[in-house]
Amino acid sequence: MKALVYHGPGQKVWEEVPNPQIQQPTDAIVRMDTTTICGSDLHILKGDTPEVIDGRVLGHEGIGTIVSVGSAVHNFREGDRVLISCISACGRCEYCRKGMYGQCLNGGGWILGHLIDGTQAEYVRIPFADNSLYRVPEQLSNEQVLFLSDILPTGYEVGVLKGVVQPGQSIAVIGAGPVGLAAILTAQLYSPMRIIALDMIDARLEKARVFGATDAINNGQVDAVEAVRTLTDGLGVDVAIEAVGIPATFELTASLVRPGGRIANIGVHGKPVTLHLEQLWIRDVTITTGLVDTFTIPTLLRMVESGRLPAEKLATHRFALDQMMEAYDTFLNASQTNALKVVLNRA
Amino acid sequence: MKALVYHGPGQKVWEEVPNPQIQQPTDAIVRMDTTTICGSDLHILKGDTPEVIDGRVLGHEGIGTIVSVGSAVHNFREGDRVLISCISACGRCEYCRKGMYGQCLNGGGWILGHLIDGTQAEYVRIPFADNSLYRVPEQLSNEQVLFLSDILPTGYEVGVLKGVVQPGQSIAVIGAGPVGLAAILTAQLYSPMRIIALDMIDARLEKARVFGATDAINNGQVDAVEAVRTLTDGLGVDVAIEAVGIPATFELTASLVRPGGRIANIGVHGKPVTLHLEQLWIRDVTITTGLVDTFTIPTLLRMVESGRLPAEKLATHRFALDQMMEAYDTFLNASQTNALKVVLNRA
Amino acid sequence: MKALVYHGPGQKVWEEVPNPQIQQPTDAIVRMDTTTICGSDLHILKGDTPEVIDGRVLGHEGIGTIVSVGSAVHNFREGDRVLISCISACGRCEYCRKGMYGQCLNGGGWILGHLIDGTQAEYVRIPFADNSLYRVPEQLSNEQVLFLSDILPTGYEVGVLKGVVQPGQSIAVIGAGPVGLAAILTAQLYSPMRIIALDMIDARLEKARVFGATDAINNGQVDAVEAVRTLTDGLGVDVAIEAVGIPATFELTASLVRPGGRIANIGVHGKPVTLHLEQLWIRDVTITTGLVDTFTIPTLLRMVESGRLPAEKLATHRFALDQMMEAYDTFLNASQTNALKVVLNRA
Amino acid sequence: MKALVYHGPGQKVWEEVPNPQIQQPTDAIVRMDTTTICGSDLHILKGDTPEVIDGRVLGHEGIGTIVSVGSAVHNFREGDRVLISCISACGRCEYCRKGMYGQCLNGGGWILGHLIDGTQAEYVRIPFADNSLYRVPEQLSNEQVLFLSDILPTGYEVGVLKGVVQPGQSIAVIGAGPVGLAAILTAQLYSPMRIIALDMIDARLEKARVFGATDAINNGQVDAVEAVRTLTDGLGVDVAIEAVGIPATFELTASLVRPGGRIANIGVHGKPVTLHLEQLWIRDVTITTGLVDTFTIPTLLRMVESGRLPAEKLATHRFALDQMMEAYDTFLNASQTNALKVVLNRA
Repeated sequence: MKALVYHGPGQKVWEEVPNPQIQQPTDAIVRMDTTTICGSDLHILKGDTPEVIDGRVLGHEGIGTIVSVGSAVHNFREGDRVLISCISACGRCEYCRKGMYGQCLNGGGWILGHLIDGTQAEYVRIPFADNSLYRVPEQLSNEQVLFLSDILPTGYEVGVLKGVVQPGQSIAVIGAGPVGLAAILTAQLYSPMRIIALDMIDARLEKARVFGATDAINNGQVDAVEAVRTLTDGLGVDVAIEAVGIPATFELTASLVRPGGRIANIGVHGKPVTLHLEQLWIRDVTITTGLVDTFTIPTLLRMVESGRLPAEKLATHRFALDQMMEAYDTFLNASQTNALKVVLNRA
Repeated sequence: MKALVYHGPGQKVWEEVPNPQIQQPTDAIVRMDTTTICGSDLHILKGDTPEVIDGRVLGHEGIGTIVSVGSAVHNFREGDRVLISCISACGRCEYCRKGMYGQCLNGGGWILGHLIDGTQAEYVRIPFADNSLYRVPEQLSNEQVLFLSDILPTGYEVGVLKGVVQPGQSIAVIGAGPVGLAAILTAQLYSPMRIIALDMIDARLEKARVFGATDAINNGQVDAVEAVRTLTDGLGVDVAIEAVGIPATFELTASLVRPGGRIANIGVHGKPVTLHLEQLWIRDVTITTGLVDTFTIPTLLRMVESGRLPAEKLATHRFALDQMMEAYDTFLNASQTNALKVVLNRA
Repeated sequence: MKALVYHGPGQKVWEEVPNPQIQQPTDAIVRMDTTTICGSDLHILKGDTPEVIDGRVLGHEGIGTIVSVGSAVHNFREGDRVLISCISACGRCEYCRKGMYGQCLNGGGWILGHLIDGTQAEYVRIPFADNSLYRVPEQLSNEQVLFLSDILPTGYEVGVLKGVVQPGQSIAVIGAGPVGLAAILTAQLYSPMRIIALDMIDARLEKARVFGATDAINNGQVDAVEAVRTLTDGLGVDVAIEAVGIPATFELTASLVRPGGRIANIGVHGKPVTLHLEQLWIRDVTITTGLVDTFTIPTLLRMVESGRLPAEKLATHRFALDQMMEAYDTFLNASQTNALKVVLNRA
Repeated sequence: MKALVYHGPGQKVWEEVPNPQIQQPTDAIVRMDTTTICGSDLHILKGDTPEVIDGRVLGHEGIGTIVSVGSAVHNFREGDRVLISCISACGRCEYCRKGMYGQCLNGGGWILGHLIDGTQAEYVRIPFADNSLYRVPEQLSNEQVLFLSDILPTGYEVGVLKGVVQPGQSIAVIGAGPVGLAAILTAQLYSPMRIIALDMIDARLEKARVFGATDAINNGQVDAVEAVRTLTDGLGVDVAIEAVGIPATFELTASLVRPGGRIANIGVHGKPVTLHLEQLWIRDVTITTGLVDTFTIPTLLRMVESGRLPAEKLATHRFALDQMMEAYDTFLNASQTNALKVVLNRA
């Protein structure tokens, strides 16, 4: 089959590789019908993720059709259309039993396109299939569901749920890239009164408004702390969500919350940050971090089904699966192409 | 009356000052029967708390007898023996309505011995008396209850409750001074399996064991991260409580928790700290900060009453009220005197 | 002044009574600008509430303008436009400190138009004014806010919050009268996937759809248990809200929830009900009851302000304040008049 | 092998049956080393559980040694000493993913000694072994751990956790049989101030005190409602736990809680009960029911390990495994033998 193979920093090729095979009784083999590219794929290509070896097939998102299952797979059979979670779950370790699949101790967690071959391919092997795949409701298109593999649950679980967004609150989302937009979109399930988007690029702030932000602040142009306080009775927001991943934005995020507020970090950080405990020790704040667990995929599927979650709005560009290299170019040059998420479909 | 008066950094005198008077219909005047000295009084004397003015009577803890009440005080009357909360609560602002009295927006919060005259005196004025005083059960002595003014609720609310300590867990308390010991004592109300105390002074670690620590680690002598992991299946503790307040101990605390764990900061910090988000972003940790609200005083009074909370164990030295200067000396030189908390009683 | 006075079962008169006066330093006197009539006023008139004495002014809802305040009132002053909570809160008892104002131990709770004179009058005395009144945002009309005195917080707190409605869930509301509609309206703040209304009157089911129900079942005409299971994968709803108050509807409500589900009772019951523990003991259900506390009024005000809660849709008929007797007739004959809530405005 | 076989109401025989065999790749075969008899085994023998067929081997508790595992079992291997949960968990259905194993939709839940052959035998087949067995810490004896199969987690999860027992509270446990004692024992992990045991037999009330009750009331001899109020400031308990399972005790339980309190039903009910909603609708109570999930077994194992949970105190009589008939006689005649739990050990 054909697949997008990583060959060390900066090197990737769409090339022929062997088809995946069932290795464990809990495995399934899935034919990929639709996939996409994630910001973390770009991190891997930059060489930021040294555990990814030369020869690895990338990708951890997508929808496909089951072509075979191991002897211990009960929930699925050949022909089922399934959503692939970016997180694999053994279902029986201490963490999986609490729904914390991202921290699986038995070889699950984020492994696809990372520690084992991934989904930017014609076929993929999915370990622990019963706990790592989700049946797609018949009436939904692949594009409506595609971003439930990773980005929507990430914004929802790590931003909105860990932030404990509640009706009537004011929240801020720092960074209006795809993950920030996913947080803005899913925060609305809890009816906050005010969703303030912050970014340094006006085009992204416009997108944020389209996705549901009630206010937009360009923190490269105005004093963001002052601007947020003006919108929030002088006290700051109830919940601030960091969706960038650099020290400056984390510090900004932490400065926006009111006493008793919450700071939910989604950003993938490569460096330590400064935490102003000399100010925050007395302010009753809560800071959370997290890798997505995707335990909310069933809920999010229902929200898409009911028309309340227009997840497909994140898709900006479409390609055939074998145009993978071109799709990467488009996604890499998002500042020119205005790409949010690209969609690749099997011909 | 006599009182301990602050006269600028390093300057304090036990001297004559005017008696306090009722100023608002919600005030009460209390004759002090027992009081104590807090680490934050020492911070004030060092000049770390510039909002404290020359002439201020210090102190925010103690037990006394009501001598008069304003016209709108309903819960108390002359002659009642009352515990004074270190936190005053207006009872009607947004924060007080949620029990977050430490963040009171109407002139409450930590004001005693800080923004208004305090309890290291023969008499004290208590604003918002209905919401800031607690009747002491008859059968309990002043010394059994004294530390419920501040240090016990601080360890319990900011350490144990924000840390969400639960039965069967492993927890670590970093810093075995009075507040750390208060956390160790009150953590036992939730039956953790293991309470690991960390400190650099062996005498304090011995105290920690007396107060209920199951394990003690001198982090000046051994690799504390390694030692804690050995005690916790290699993953780290469920809850780590910082009770020191300097950057190094915060970093240590944050390095001790397992994925999904909680870091509860009690320490009063004067400088920013480094937060290793490059490691923690993916580990599902929760970090909390907080000023005590003292909303748990009624619960803690019941626990003392039932014999399950030997709070008086924190008292190591006793003085008459007019030996205030001597008591300060003893408390200041804790490393020589081994003082935990000093008790001052009206003659 | 003029007021609606209760003179024993079946007897009420709009008549001259003395103006209310400040009695406690925490009181406020409010001139009524807008008020309404509640189902519980009808219960009183039927004689179901024997603690209400002859001569009592009825009513516990409304919006007015402050004309005077006692010496200990801090939050309000003459001229403020305020929403009156149906629940008075002393702010300093064990229950008020937890936000459970409905259970106030110091003479608060539901007292207006019940144990003291109420709001169906030209003026009313409000005890504990600081904790029992809410400033109305300038840009909102009285009619937009009027139902936040009682019926909206009742549906929201006792139905939606105690039911713990969450995104993606299926919920059922049994009884599509005003309180049931308030539950349907406020449930949407948590984005359930499906809101199933049940009633025996088709006109009310049509109203339920207007207020946001996704499905409507006439339980006088079809097997409601069967119909609900068909809509919910055969397992039943996550949350079932009882908004009628008779044994038959409680039993129906309890039969609709799936294992692990919640039954939130809002209905005011006059008789014991049968609880089928022989079926439910093994099904992990939670049943809640409650009197409204109105602690959510600030949140609901923000939701109205942000345009997400069209509370005024409950108003169907409007009268001048001195048309009180006519307004009662309209509300009493709701089956003919199709009245949901009547609005009475000062001329 | 030999096993205790049910042959219809009132009929049981310790007789030869075929050895169990691996049927699914997720099965394990366990040699029984220690087992016990449960109240629900007696219910089956009375014919109250018609789904149990003639020929069924009874029993759902015990500790044993693994003799073989299916090809998909990862957590265990031959020779492991394991505790058997009374609840089997598929680990991949909607309920198992939430830790609600008792409600498993894929053939788990309470099946042992009920829908498939059980543990009162020399060998037993355990389905879904990875999620239904727990490794026993080496230093613990079988008797210390035996009651963690069912009765301890039942008292803890369905009584203490669903009751949300908290430090400083007053709780009541109605019924001082084995399950009530398990609730009394495990409630202490949360440090309530007062544990009031109610029963009609003085010998059981004495046992309750031994297990940690602070007060004991014989509700056959005194007015229990009055007696409980006297102990609780006139308001009633925070949490009342029903551990009998008949209408009269449920009504009693519901009458003991204060406003805002919780009623946790553990009792197995055969008939409907009367719920006095005409009193309770206004009192903010929460009523919970539940089958045990045994998700707390790892926590309880740690508590036994740390010496804080003397679970073995429930054992009163000991037998060899082939004295099964005699053990049943002793357990059936508990009123004469004073048996709490009997222990059967492999010779």
